[in-house]
Amino acid sequence: MPARPRTYLDWNATALLAPEARTAMLAALGLSGNPSSVHGEGRAVRALIDAARRDVAGLVGADPAHVIFTSGATEAASMVLTPDFRMGRTPLSIGRLYVSAIEHPAVREGGRFDKEQVIEIPVTAAGIVDLAALEALLDAHDAESGLPMVAVMLANNETGIIQPVRAAGEIVHKRGGLFVVDAVQAAGRLPLSISDLGADFLFLSAHKLGGPKGAGALVSRGEVLMPKPLIRGGGQEKGHRSGTENAAAIAGFGAVARAAADGLEARTARIRALRDHLEARMAALAGDVIIHGRAVERLSNTTFFSLPGLKSETGQIAFDLEGIAVSAGSACSSGKVGASHVLTAMGFDAALGGLRASLGPTTTEADVDRFLDAFARIAGRRRQGTAAA
Amino acid sequence: MPARPRTYLDWNATALLAPEARTAMLAALGLSGNPSSVHGEGRAVRALIDAARRDVAGLVGADPAHVIFTSGATEAASMVLTPDFRMGRTPLSIGRLYVSAIEHPAVREGGRFDKEQVIEIPVTAAGIVDLAALEALLDAHDAESGLPMVAVMLANNETGIIQPVRAAGEIVHKRGGLFVVDAVQAAGRLPLSISDLGADFLFLSAHKLGGPKGAGALVSRGEVLMPKPLIRGGGQEKGHRSGTENAAAIAGFGAVARAAADGLEARTARIRALRDHLEARMAALAGDVIIHGRAVERLSNTTFFSLPGLKSETGQIAFDLEGIAVSAGSACSSGKVGASHVLTAMGFDAALGGLRASLGPTTTEADVDRFLDAFARIAGRRRQGTAAA
Repeated sequence: MPARPRTYLDWNATALLAPEARTAMLAALGLSGNPSSVHGEGRAVRALIDAARRDVAGLVGADPAHVIFTSGATEAASMVLTPDFRMGRTPLSIGRLYVSAIEHPAVREGGRFDKEQVIEIPVTAAGIVDLAALEALLDAHDAESGLPMVAVMLANNETGIIQPVRAAGEIVHKRGGLFVVDAVQAAGRLPLSISDLGADFLFLSAHKLGGPKGAGALVSRGEVLMPKPLIRGGGQEKGHRSGTENAAAIAGFGAVARAAADGLEARTARIRALRDHLEARMAALAGDVIIHGRAVERLSNTTFFSLPGLKSETGQIAFDLEGIAVSAGSACSSGKVGASHVLTAMGFDAALGGLRASLGPTTTEADVDRFLDAFARIAGRRRQGTAAA
Repeated sequence: MPARPRTYLDWNATALLAPEARTAMLAALGLSGNPSSVHGEGRAVRALIDAARRDVAGLVGADPAHVIFTSGATEAASMVLTPDFRMGRTPLSIGRLYVSAIEHPAVREGGRFDKEQVIEIPVTAAGIVDLAALEALLDAHDAESGLPMVAVMLANNETGIIQPVRAAGEIVHKRGGLFVVDAVQAAGRLPLSISDLGADFLFLSAHKLGGPKGAGALVSRGEVLMPKPLIRGGGQEKGHRSGTENAAAIAGFGAVARAAADGLEARTARIRALRDHLEARMAALAGDVIIHGRAVERLSNTTFFSLPGLKSETGQIAFDLEGIAVSAGSACSSGKVGASHVLTAMGFDAALGGLRASLGPTTTEADVDRFLDAFARIAGRRRQGTAAA
């Protein structure tokens, strides 16, 4: 890596570890004991996990008994997106999974559903899930196949655009379906309540809100209707998710969940001001820049933009060489940089590249200025057809 | 917890975090970046994971390309124990799963197999998998159902008894089956080589050898024949296991995997001497103590014993009150203390309680002496019918 200072503007890919998460993790790593052990060492670790469970429940207004810790949001999605549910001990079958076209790959892949059971809900040109289309799809749902399940994310990871989750949930519930909300990008950035959202299940990822990688949660509104376990074994998490709990990561998750509510409004306002300044300057520096979702409600920290003539991959590398970490779409695909499925779903040409700058609680004005300096150079080079290094 | 010094003799439930794991984790936690991001921050995290992959591969003599990181051994077991395999892109069906009667619940639960597809292989009274019975079961295997898969652990978690894995593998391969080895308790305690074991797949857990909770691995001998992914999404781990990698836990895993080979023989010999002293004194203090597996090859660190008239749960609580952490069977079942399925499989009465003392690299003579003092008191109280506190 270059010796010059780096500017990290890729918080939607992963947040920097918050100090409170680090402290909680160090404390947990200092404990011996398996949380399933009934001796003193085991009980001390169990107490940490229980405290974190209360904190994570608090983040989304849920009952701690309804929080299942997983290794991350992708596991939580694979767990809940399954045709095999149980109502108490009675099997209950889900016939189709309806997912918005802009869901994260962890949802679009459909978990344990077969490919042919997964149906896409289109989004409007504004990047918002098309509720009329959802209604039409559910009206056409074949009830003989089993119940419908619908998954809509609260805030899109690429654009930051906030989705009409509550309205979608009402549509789903009116038709007797199950409603799953990906709250990964919203957590720590928007106030969250599982009942206000109208979600039967939502899932979270610790590392997107300043916690460590390796912890997530599936949160349910009740506990009668539950998915068949994905990972089976020793019966941890009340039998819903076996395997020794990742106590340190869970403790870190709890710490950031607890901290997330404190000063949320002020934190969000500060980040929004930085982001809005960044976007205003971008538009002034390059008149043809397209800033996606500017007209609709978005997360305060996210700028997703296209510079005509600049490919995503080229742009990302150019920013990286300038010392700035931004993302070409989502960072979920193991280094693959393809066309953005989000831009395609919004009706843009697949050839149009998208770049995402996402800010976080420790982002400074100096970070934004460095980004803008680089942006000016990259946008300028592009005009001369030499954007690539 | 009591203020008196505690003696931790439950290393088979979870090992104390090794200093090298802690150091590696702290370094990883200091890095920003999602390992799937192509910018400098992402590449730095990716490099840590790749280094850990080489270290874990080295621990078991495998190709780093054949190591898939998971959230732990239970996930790895749920991943590999599936009827749905692929040979390249061609689906391949496994018809039955044969598991020894003393496997860990993560294996006995059968992963993604239906209950009726899972068949138990008995063990002898000595606690060793019955190879003649395995042969007979495989000879009776219904090939129309698909290939057979067999899972046998290398070292049992409760007794420490080492299983005839190589011979079992030969039997399985002669009949065209797939052979899976749970190497969780053996790692760091025995030299390991996936090809010497004759395993098609083996799995590991970081926290059993001094690494953190939250990391494990599924290691394969090749990469043509692979299980259908359990967790789907962004395509990490070459598509075999999606979800942002738990970089810190993986780095800690790599550190202990690298350290495990250093001084293995001397470390093992020292622990064995402590354990053998412990067992000799136990036998002298309570003539009726039964030390399981003493006549056969065992891990050097494990003592699994029964004191007639002392229930597992009562015994564990009594030791805990004496400041000593031991286990009543395995610690995998979320606080449940039931009859030991291992003792039952060995033909003992389900009412006979079993207690496990398991030692580790930092166990001292003083720890053993404290255990023996408590053992003498608890065994004595038991004679007066007042073992419980």
